[in-house]
Order: sequence, then C-alpha cells, then structure tokens
Amino acid sequence: MSEPLRIAIIGTAFMGRAHAHAWRSAPAFFDLPRKPEVVLAVGRDAFKTEEFAGTWGIPESGVDWREAVARPDIDVIDICTPGDSHAEIALAALAAGKHVLCEKPLANTRAEAEEMAAAAEAAHAATGALAMCGFSYRRTPALSYARQLVEEGFVGRLWQVRAQYLQDWLADPEAPWVWRLSSELAGSGALGDIGSHIIDAAQWVSGHRIEAVSALTSTFVDARPLPDGSRGEVDVDDAAVFSARLTGGVLGAFEATRYATGRKNALRVELSGTEGAIAFDLTDSNFVELYRVADGERAGFTRIDVTQPGHPYAEWWPPGHALGYEHAFSHQAVDFVRAVAAGEQPRPSFADAAQVQAVLDAVQRSAAADGLLTPTA
Amino acid sequence: MSEPLRIAIIGTAFMGRAHAHAWRSAPAFFDLPRKPEVVLAVGRDAFKTEEFAGTWGIPESGVDWREAVARPDIDVIDICTPGDSHAEIALAALAAGKHVLCEKPLANTRAEAEEMAAAAEAAHAATGALAMCGFSYRRTPALSYARQLVEEGFVGRLWQVRAQYLQDWLADPEAPWVWRLSSELAGSGALGDIGSHIIDAAQWVSGHRIEAVSALTSTFVDARPLPDGSRGEVDVDDAAVFSARLTGGVLGAFEATRYATGRKNALRVELSGTEGAIAFDLTDSNFVELYRVADGERAGFTRIDVTQPGHPYAEWWPPGHALGYEHAFSHQAVDFVRAVAAGEQPRPSFADAAQVQAVLDAVQRSAAADGLLTPTA
Amino acid sequence: MSEPLRIAIIGTAFMGRAHAHAWRSAPAFFDLPRKPEVVLAVGRDAFKTEEFAGTWGIPESGVDWREAVARPDIDVIDICTPGDSHAEIALAALAAGKHVLCEKPLANTRAEAEEMAAAAEAAHAATGALAMCGFSYRRTPALSYARQLVEEGFVGRLWQVRAQYLQDWLADPEAPWVWRLSSELAGSGALGDIGSHIIDAAQWVSGHRIEAVSALTSTFVDARPLPDGSRGEVDVDDAAVFSARLTGGVLGAFEATRYATGRKNALRVELSGTEGAIAFDLTDSNFVELYRVADGERAGFTRIDVTQPGHPYAEWWPPGHALGYEHAFSHQAVDFVRAVAAGEQPRPSFADAAQVQAVLDAVQRSAAADGLLTPTA
Amino acid sequence: MSEPLRIAIIGTAFMGRAHAHAWRSAPAFFDLPRKPEVVLAVGRDAFKTEEFAGTWGIPESGVDWREAVARPDIDVIDICTPGDSHAEIALAALAAGKHVLCEKPLANTRAEAEEMAAAAEAAHAATGALAMCGFSYRRTPALSYARQLVEEGFVGRLWQVRAQYLQDWLADPEAPWVWRLSSELAGSGALGDIGSHIIDAAQWVSGHRIEAVSALTSTFVDARPLPDGSRGEVDVDDAAVFSARLTGGVLGAFEATRYATGRKNALRVELSGTEGAIAFDLTDSNFVELYRVADGERAGFTRIDVTQPGHPYAEWWPPGHALGYEHAFSHQAVDFVRAVAAGEQPRPSFADAAQVQAVLDAVQRSAAADGLLTPTA
Repeated sequence: MSEPLRIAIIGTAFMGRAHAHAWRSAPAFFDLPRKPEVVLAVGRDAFKTEEFAGTWGIPESGVDWREAVARPDIDVIDICTPGDSHAEIALAALAAGKHVLCEKPLANTRAEAEEMAAAAEAAHAATGALAMCGFSYRRTPALSYARQLVEEGFVGRLWQVRAQYLQDWLADPEAPWVWRLSSELAGSGALGDIGSHIIDAAQWVSGHRIEAVSALTSTFVDARPLPDGSRGEVDVDDAAVFSARLTGGVLGAFEATRYATGRKNALRVELSGTEGAIAFDLTDSNFVELYRVADGERAGFTRIDVTQPGHPYAEWWPPGHALGYEHAFSHQAVDFVRAVAAGEQPRPSFADAAQVQAVLDAVQRSAAADGLLTPTA
Repeated sequence: MSEPLRIAIIGTAFMGRAHAHAWRSAPAFFDLPRKPEVVLAVGRDAFKTEEFAGTWGIPESGVDWREAVARPDIDVIDICTPGDSHAEIALAALAAGKHVLCEKPLANTRAEAEEMAAAAEAAHAATGALAMCGFSYRRTPALSYARQLVEEGFVGRLWQVRAQYLQDWLADPEAPWVWRLSSELAGSGALGDIGSHIIDAAQWVSGHRIEAVSALTSTFVDARPLPDGSRGEVDVDDAAVFSARLTGGVLGAFEATRYATGRKNALRVELSGTEGAIAFDLTDSNFVELYRVADGERAGFTRIDVTQPGHPYAEWWPPGHALGYEHAFSHQAVDFVRAVAAGEQPRPSFADAAQVQAVLDAVQRSAAADGLLTPTA
Repeated sequence: MSEPLRIAIIGTAFMGRAHAHAWRSAPAFFDLPRKPEVVLAVGRDAFKTEEFAGTWGIPESGVDWREAVARPDIDVIDICTPGDSHAEIALAALAAGKHVLCEKPLANTRAEAEEMAAAAEAAHAATGALAMCGFSYRRTPALSYARQLVEEGFVGRLWQVRAQYLQDWLADPEAPWVWRLSSELAGSGALGDIGSHIIDAAQWVSGHRIEAVSALTSTFVDARPLPDGSRGEVDVDDAAVFSARLTGGVLGAFEATRYATGRKNALRVELSGTEGAIAFDLTDSNFVELYRVADGERAGFTRIDVTQPGHPYAEWWPPGHALGYEHAFSHQAVDFVRAVAAGEQPRPSFADAAQVQAVLDAVQRSAAADGLLTPTA
Repeated sequence: MSEPLRIAIIGTAFMGRAHAHAWRSAPAFFDLPRKPEVVLAVGRDAFKTEEFAGTWGIPESGVDWREAVARPDIDVIDICTPGDSHAEIALAALAAGKHVLCEKPLANTRAEAEEMAAAAEAAHAATGALAMCGFSYRRTPALSYARQLVEEGFVGRLWQVRAQYLQDWLADPEAPWVWRLSSELAGSGALGDIGSHIIDAAQWVSGHRIEAVSALTSTFVDARPLPDGSRGEVDVDDAAVFSARLTGGVLGAFEATRYATGRKNALRVELSGTEGAIAFDLTDSNFVELYRVADGERAGFTRIDVTQPGHPYAEWWPPGHALGYEHAFSHQAVDFVRAVAAGEQPRPSFADAAQVQAVLDAVQRSAAADGLLTPTA
C-alpha cells in the first residue's frame, strides 16, 4: 500500500462516529490502494472532541475546521456537520484543493447546492480535487446489487418506481423539539433528511431522473417541548408525499415521513418493469427481492440474501452472515478511497447531489402552491 | 326462518359467479333472518345464462333485466354487470321498489352516481327499498376487524393513511385489449376499478373522508392487441398516484396500478396514529398487523390471524383455517340480508359510493390539470 | 353430464360440514363427468341431522348408517365420523359394493387399517368399488404443485425432509377435555390427528416412504376439566417428535404438537435436495416457496402465489385471489368423482393410508421403548 | 479507564478476524472498565500472521502460542484455532494464570472438555484466572433479549423447545473436502460445529438443561474432492436430528445440518409455554418474535426490532439501524472485559461448555446405537 490518505473529520456526533468507524474498518476487510487514516477530528466542544479522538485512535483534535482546511498534510475533508454549515466548509476545502466527502443532503438550499457543485467542478479542473456526497444507502449491498441488475436489463422497460422512507420518531406529539425541526438549521424536515435518500436511491437504482413533481406536505404538530418547559416552533414538513414523472415516462410515487407509527427506519424502493421487478426494504437490509416475468408459473418474488459470492461488497464474512447499518459507510469509504487513488470522480458527485436538491426544492414549491382539487367542488 | 328473500342476479360473468356462490354459502354458515334464494339469472346470452343457472341451482334464466325488475315475486336486484349499465338498471329497480345490491364502482361517472344515490334515498322514503354498493373488501375479516379496532380507539389520533392496490396484468405491453381499457365502458382504468376499492377501504376503515386530492395518472400503452390482429385504443389510466387531505388533517398517499410487476392483487391499507398502527395486505388476507405504541420496548407489528373467536365473520371453521377471496362476498350477503330483514340501511349505501365516485372524479380532474412543477424551472 | 353420483354423508360435525360444502361447490367450479349429489345425511341425533340436511339441501336424513349402506340407490359412503367407527362402517360399505371416502386417520389402530385396506382391495376385485382416505391437504394447491415439481425433478436428489404440524389449543393446561384426548376414541393424540397429515404429506410430496423411526412423545397434562367440574383422563400424546429414515437414505425430522403456543394450524413441509428446495406452511396456504440451486447468485426462496394459470386447481378465480381451507375438500371431491367415473383408484388409497397407520404404530412403539441416552451416563 | 487488558489472539483465520475486529470495536461503542488491547497475534504462517497483525494494528506477531502463554505482560489468551488444539492451549494458559476466551465447541471430545472445565475451576481458585467459551450467538441482541424475557416469566411454564441450525454448503455432493469433515480435526460434523450452538442457545435461553436424547445422524456423501483430484474421506455427520427431554419435563426437537438447500445460516430457536412463545431466526437477526397468550383476540406473533432503547447492547446506533453478524463478538468482548475487571465468572463458563460437550457426546452415542423401529416390523 502506498502513501496513506490523510483525513480530517469535521463533526463528531452520530455521523462523525459512523465515518470514523468506517475509515478504520474499510482497510481491514477490503484491499485498498491507499490506507485511509483519520489524523484530525474537529468538533465544537474541545473536551468532547478530544474524547472522540481518543475513542477512535485519532491523533489530533481541534475546534476550528478552518485549521483543518489550511493544513497541507491533510488530503480529505470529511464533512459530518448539520446541513447549515456544509456549503461554507465544502467551498473552503475545495478552494484549498482538498478532496471532500460531504454528508447528505448536500446543502440546505438549492442555491447553495448548485454553488457547491460548480465549485467542485472548478476545483477538480484546477487542482484535481474530487468531491462526493454521502448518500450512503447506495452502498447497502442489496441496493448496489439492485443497481447492477437494472444495468444488466433485469427489469426490462421500467414503468414505475415507488419509494418510501418511513420513520416514526415524531408520531408522539410530545416528542421533544430537536434542531432537525428548524428550517434554518435543517433546510426542510422529513423531506430533506430522508426524502433526499429515496430521491437519490430511486433515481440511481432506476437510472431515471425526476422531471416533474406534484407534492403535498404536512406539519402535524407545530410546536414541541424544549428542555426548559417552553415550546419550540416546528417550521418544517413532518411528512411529504409526492408523485413524479421521471425520464422515459416512468411514474413515481414517493413518501417520506416521521409519523409512520411502528416503522423505525423503513427505506423502501420498488421498480416495476416489463421483464421484472425489484423490491428492497431497509428493515430487511441483507435481502433484495426479485421477480422475473420469464419464470412464468414459477415466477414469484425471490428473496436474495446478498452476502454471497458475486454480490457487491461480499468481502466481510461467509454467506448468510448479516451486515449492519454501518457497513454501508465502510463501503462508501472503500469507493471513495479507490476513486481518489485513481483520480476518478466518485459518485454521487456534488452535481448528482445538487440535482437531488433541485428535486427537493420543486417538491417544496409544489407543496406551497397547494393545487389540490376537492371532490365537492 | 321466515319468508325467503328472492333475488335476481343480473350479470353472469366473474361477479355473477361470486355472488351466486355467496348467496348459497351464506345461509349454510351464518344464522340469517331470511334465507336468500336466487330465483332468476339474467345474462346477455340465453344459452350461457341457462348454463349458469343450472350450475348454481337457479330455477329460471333470462336475457332481459327489465323482466326481472317487473316481477312482483322478486325482492332483490343484484347488479353484477359492467359499470356502464349500473345506473339504468338500478334506477329502474329502485323505481319498482326493489332492494338493490350493485357492484362497484357504483357508476361510470359522478353524475350517474349522484343520480343513483338520490334515487335510492327517494325509493327508500317511498317504498322502503334499500340499496347497497358491493365494496366487498369491507367484509374481508381482517379489514372488518381493523375498522372495529379504529372505532375502539386503537390508533389514537390518526396522522396518515397509505393505501395501494397493485396488480400487474398489463405490465406486459402485449397483453390483449379488454373492455376495462375503454373509458366508455369502464369509466376509468385502474382508478375506478381498483382505486375505488382503496378509496372506500381507506375512508371506511379510518373514519376520515377525502377532502382534496392532487393526482398524477399514466397511460403507458395506448393501444393493445385485439383478437382480429388490429389494436384497440386504451383511453383510460393504467396507473393513478394521488395524495390527499382527509378530514381532521389526515394525510393520505394512494396508488392504484395494473403495472406493478409481480404484484397480483395487493390491496394494502396502513393507518398511522398516535397510539398505534394497523397494516393490511390482501396478499396475506387472513392476517392484519397491529402496532401498539404503549407496548414500549415490546412494541412491534403483531400479525393477527383473524379466524379466531372474537373476530368478525368467524363462523366458518376452527381457528387457523384460512378463508379465501370469495368469503367476503358471503359476508356481504349476510350483512345485506340482515339489514334488509331489519329494514336498516346496509352500508356502503349508494350515497357512500357516490362520494367515492366524487373522489374518483376529482382525481381525474386533478390529473388532467397537470399542475406539476419541474426541478429545472 | 351423465348419471349423478349419489352420496351418503355419515357424520355431521366439522368434517360432515366440510364435505357437504365440498360436494356442492366442486361441480360449480370444475367440469366433472358425473355430478355429485348428497342424497342422505346420517348422524347420531335425529333433530340435528335433519337440520344439517336442511342447511345443505340434502333431501333425506337418518340416524343409522346401516340403512345408508343397504340402499341400492346410493353410490358412495362418505365417512366423516370419529376414528373409532371408521373400520366398521367402511367394511360394511365395501362389502355392499359402495365406493368409500373415509376421513383420516384411516383407523385407530394399525390392525384395523390393514383390515380395511385388504377389504378395499377385495371389494374392488369383486365389485369395482373404489376406496380413498381423506388426507385433504394433498389437494391444497401449493402442496399439489410441490408434488408436481418433485415429479419433474425440481429438487434433484433428495437429502432431507422436515415436517411439522404445530397447533396450540392445549397449551393452556385448563383447556377442557375432549374426545380427542381419549386413546379409546381417538387412537392417539397429536400423533394420529395431525402427525398423520405430515407423514402423508411428507411421503407423498417427496415420493419417499418412511422405513424406520425413533420417537419421543409427551403427555404434558394428564387430566383436564370436564363440564361437571371433575377431570377427564388424558391418555394420548400431547406432542410427538420423531426422526426417520426414508427410502433412498433420506433423513426426516417430524414434529406434531398441540402445545406450540401461538401456532394455530401450521402444517409445514420442507424438502432439501441437490438441485432445489421446496417449503410450504399452511399458515400461508396460497403460497409455496421454491429454491433453485442453478440460479447461483440470484438464488433465493421464491414465493409462488399458486392461484395462477398452470397451477393445480386454478379454476376458481383470477390470479391473486386467495383460496381457503375448505377448497382442498372441493378438490378432493373433484378427484374422487373423476376417479370413480373413470374406474381408477383414487389416491390416497386405503393401502396408502394403512401404511401411514403403520408408521404411526412404529412411532408409538418407539416412544414406548424409550431408548434415550443421558449426557450424564 | 484504568490499566488496559492485554490480549494475545491465537489463530488468524475467520474467527481470528472476528475477534480482532471485536476487541477494537467494543471500546469505541461501550463504556468499559479496562480497554482491551490485542498486543500479539499468533498463527502458523509467519508471513500471514504478520500481515494479519498489520491489518488490525496489532504490534507483534509470532508462530508459537507457548510464547504468548509464557509472557507475563499478557492478560488474556484468546483461542481462535480449530477444535483439536483448544485443550492443549487452554490448559497451558490456565496453568500460567491467564484469563482465557476459547472458541466453541470447547473441545473435540467430552473428556477434553471436562478436563478443561476442571482446570478452569482449579486455575480460578489458584490464580483468579477466568475462562469463557465463545458461544457468541448468546450475545446476538435478539437472543439476549429472549433470555431476559424468559427470566421475567414471559413464557410461563415451558412446554417445548424447538431449535434448528440449517446451512447448505454441503448440499452439492461435489463441494470440496475441508478440515471440518474430519473427525480427527473437528470432532464431529454439523453436530459439533453448529449443533453445539443450538444446544447452548436452547438451554441458555430456556433455562432448562438437556437430560436425555434420542438421535439420528446421516453422512450423505462419504468422500469429497481434494485439490489434487483425489477424494478425502468424510467421517463426520452431515446432519443430526435429535429429540430431547429437558429438565422440568420440557420436550425438545433439534436439527443441525449442512444440507438444508437454500438455508445459508438459519439458527432458529422457539420456546412454547403456557403464557407465551418466543421465536428467533438468525436469518432475521435484528428481530425476535413474541406471542403473548394474554392478548386474547389480539394475540399474534409480534416482530420486535431489538435495536431500541431498553434492548440489550443498544449502544450502537439509533433505533431501526441494523446490527450484523460481527456485533455479537463485540458484545462478547464487552461482557468478557467487564467480568474480568470485576473478577466475576463470565458465562458460558468452561463448565457450561463441557455440559454442551456431554450432550454432543450423548447424541453421538445414541446415533451409533441406532435403536430405530420399522413400520414393517
């Protein structure tokens, strides 16, 4: 293995933890051209950040991401902060010639996202810097395998895509206020947080892009408890339902919600085509279901355990030994390192992610326009 | 048992068969106040109708539904024809003072449906005639049980309803043309045929009515093979996706399609509320899944086999012995006979069904208005 | 249709009801060479039997099965009584030249069963009478289809069979005493009642017969409440677990129990072979699961909805419309009528059923011998 | 965190990898009283062992486990070798006062296992050394939760246990010979390898021990291809089916096989009791299914996602984010470190594992005695 790839992680909460684990596990299970090494952790709180660094064997910690960007020995800026700081950090890192991995959604607004995509393109031309957005579910083996099957023509001509991301952590109207419920901090609600995942997954797996949308969103509870006993305003969507036309005349049905009681984390994608269907549910993440029309009377949904030889990212354990949520982050690390080492654009690029942001923006505009018709009209 | 209830079945195809079987099975398994007896079968083809009558032990057959309506010894007109003749037959039957059971959707247009609802109300006032629309899935034990649970408060405050009716018999672009693909004969496509079922089921089970919709429909294949080698035009929707606002601020997501490859007959309804969730899939018709928030760490979707004591329509066999598709028709017969014997309005009434028709109409208008927004705008 | 096939049903409880329904439904959905007509119902209680006859449109009723056997106008004696009277009735019917359909298990003892099989063979030679035992689950479409696949070589060389029949109606130690808990009336407990079904199903579907067994049975609760407040003795097995060697070196694992809490009626059969596997669970009775080794990385259990064209007994409704428990009885009626009309032996024959009885007998002897070894020896 | 716990891993294949990953991940996600540090890796091949050490950040590597045992700075000997060397290494390590974690099955014979258990007890008395056997599935959150529920009385009086471990890697008769097919190297076949897991899991979760067994084993293919084109003898069981009596009159049904076509790694345990049932399938490892009798008409199997607050080992990610196979090894590391730090016996102890070995021995003796009865006798 040649020169290591030196990384600074910016942000040490849930996503920072997932990334730190991934950078360390990836090279233990996969052959990589360069060994990723996290050399710096940056967080808001000096003490907590030092603790984080200690936990993950990261030699240095700090509280100012600008120092990370300025350091010449650092190759990669890995942005794991909330969405309101993505643009500023990424633009600075790209300007400094760093490779960038940025958590999703790429930004809080379409304008920021498009600025970031333009900056990434310019930086690449200028310095060879490469930028990627962390839609990690693409690297869930079942979805990667689904994508591969679509490329091989498994579904034939595609008619429809249906995608849902169902969570339930707000179904209790007394669940506490968190930053994700503020449009200023989070951009949007369920839409940007988890709707972005199904937009990316549906488009990427199917190979079709959304061309037009019609949307309905709801904010069911407009204020929630704060620690001090008062209530914080909720000014984002709690749930978003939208229909879409995709390229090639494909029809799409989408739902993202935090109010699907009992559904903890159900990201579902289903493709229906002339020759087959593919269905995935993250609740059952080690499996993908395939339906092949040509099987005639023996056709049915086949439940494939995607931990077997020939499946994507099968380097971990023998067949039938389940992978978990975090493994997709290791796979993302693997693909990022390989792309950087090869000087090739990792996907999803910032441009890919900015297109997702444009869809989110159209959904919000459509919901605001509220063009519903009534049966009693 | 007192006086039998004498029935004429109009229409001897798929639905006629389902009804004939139901009228005969119902009294063998359920205690009924009056015994239903099909005394006359009416079809288009004299020979086939006679054969149908022979098969089902029906003493008489004919080809003119007007004779059935005119006969004083007949109590019930059971309309099992395609939608384009529902209104004419039902109006005549109601005018003659007959009780009417009419297959769904009630009519091919909103105007017809509303005329039928008005006629039913007038006839009841004038003669005591009772009219019901055959949304038979209401009588699937699992959905009946779901309705009962909602009435008992199981879901608490309802946030969302999602409903799908997925079939795949048109996913093959060379599947032949049939009358269901003509707007003149069928009114609409997937929307009226199976979309009507999920509209009725979602509204009835939840107790909330649709107030506004935003819809997208597609006709993927606009002509299909006829027996003579030419192609027949398809001028109905192949798939319909729509969002809805229901009473009480409930958000709805709906899809009806004949292009969901591999899904033969998946009518699905899911309710998400503050205290619980209920999920049903017709593919697994003897079960309903319940989620109870109060169960805390032991909460999860519980798969209830609804063939046990205490469940609706459990009169058939011991617990764990599955019922099939046709049983819902027997239950419909049971409830119709009981309502008629008691002089009470059976549900869904024609007014209920006309409201479903108004929703179908709004969906069609919304789809025609095509108010989609584009991400690139 | 030629001359009807005139049937007397002996026994009017659960099984009598299932048979009466089946004889009436079969000719309405299937083309039959002779129309089955139940002309006489025989029960113990004159009033209840008359009521039963009225319910099912059976013209006559009586309380003496010997009169049914003696009547020259009756073609078929359909035995739906408990096991302790099977032998006597069947032997008399066969001696009178009647065709016989006898509920399972064929008898309460191996000796009776073998006498019945010999009588059936003799009667057939003498009068052409045909006898069949009612292991109705063979006619569940999913199991029929499984059998067909095995015949086509789907599983390749068979290694193993695993079969379970799990019920739970005795898991409550205070569940009341019933006749099925008396060895005098029922022969054995879970073993004969439901164990006989999995022995028949496993042997028939696989095409391999059990050659040797090693068994363990338990009676967990030895007395249960009677209506008068006293307790009735339980002298049959509550649960039976046995291993088996089948022809061709196949290994078998069997369990029949009434104490599998939460499992209402789970008859399961799974075959594992060199080229494929087949799995069935009656809880999900409209589906069979197939695994095909040759599918390589796309291999997985495929859930086949067996209501589609090309599947056995698909005459009922369109694809995806579920059948229920009772339909297997209609299919049994169809096959019986067709065999009788053709003068061919219907299966399972009394000889087939006597072989099942011999296996039950071996299981009981093995359990009684109690050759267990202890880890502490 | 106080003094680290210094560990030597002996064995660098599949299990060595699983353990190395676990020792490193455990302290990053769990609060531990001492930080585990793997300071030495020992393997047969110097080059590969050095590579292994490099991959996992282990400072030293070697080829002689005796040096590891002799080093005073090492606290724990972690035995990840095949079963034929367990006894020798463990006895030496215990004699040297080391804590020992030994992979399962504890040994290849009952005699060895009992010697190891005695040595562990003696070493503990002499030096405070603690020994544990690595039945890692105990630490799968779903099974840990099942155990906790049983302790809380969830199942009431237990009637039955059924346990299966189904794999299929030998269903192809041309699959190659490996060391696991030699009795000298592996002790037994499916029985010791995976049968030991279900014996341990069934006993531990239920709280009942096996008192007597009746077994049937098969070796379906007695020679398999070697790399040189010749065939290697298979002298172990391919599949083992056994019935058992457990303490308290509980009935057990067990199957371990490598010929269950299509079942990659299905470890299943089900408990049936008076008040409830618990079912687990490793194929669906983040879930456990619970049935509660008291729920009456709302009773059904409830699918619990065991990644939620209140569930065992829930420290990883938010609810609904799946764990994988390897996490159980991290949990095992957590529990081992905590027990060692507290000076308490970690479970399963060597005595626990020796009891499992005694059951394996009884199964083999019972199978050899071959006391089957034939139906034709």
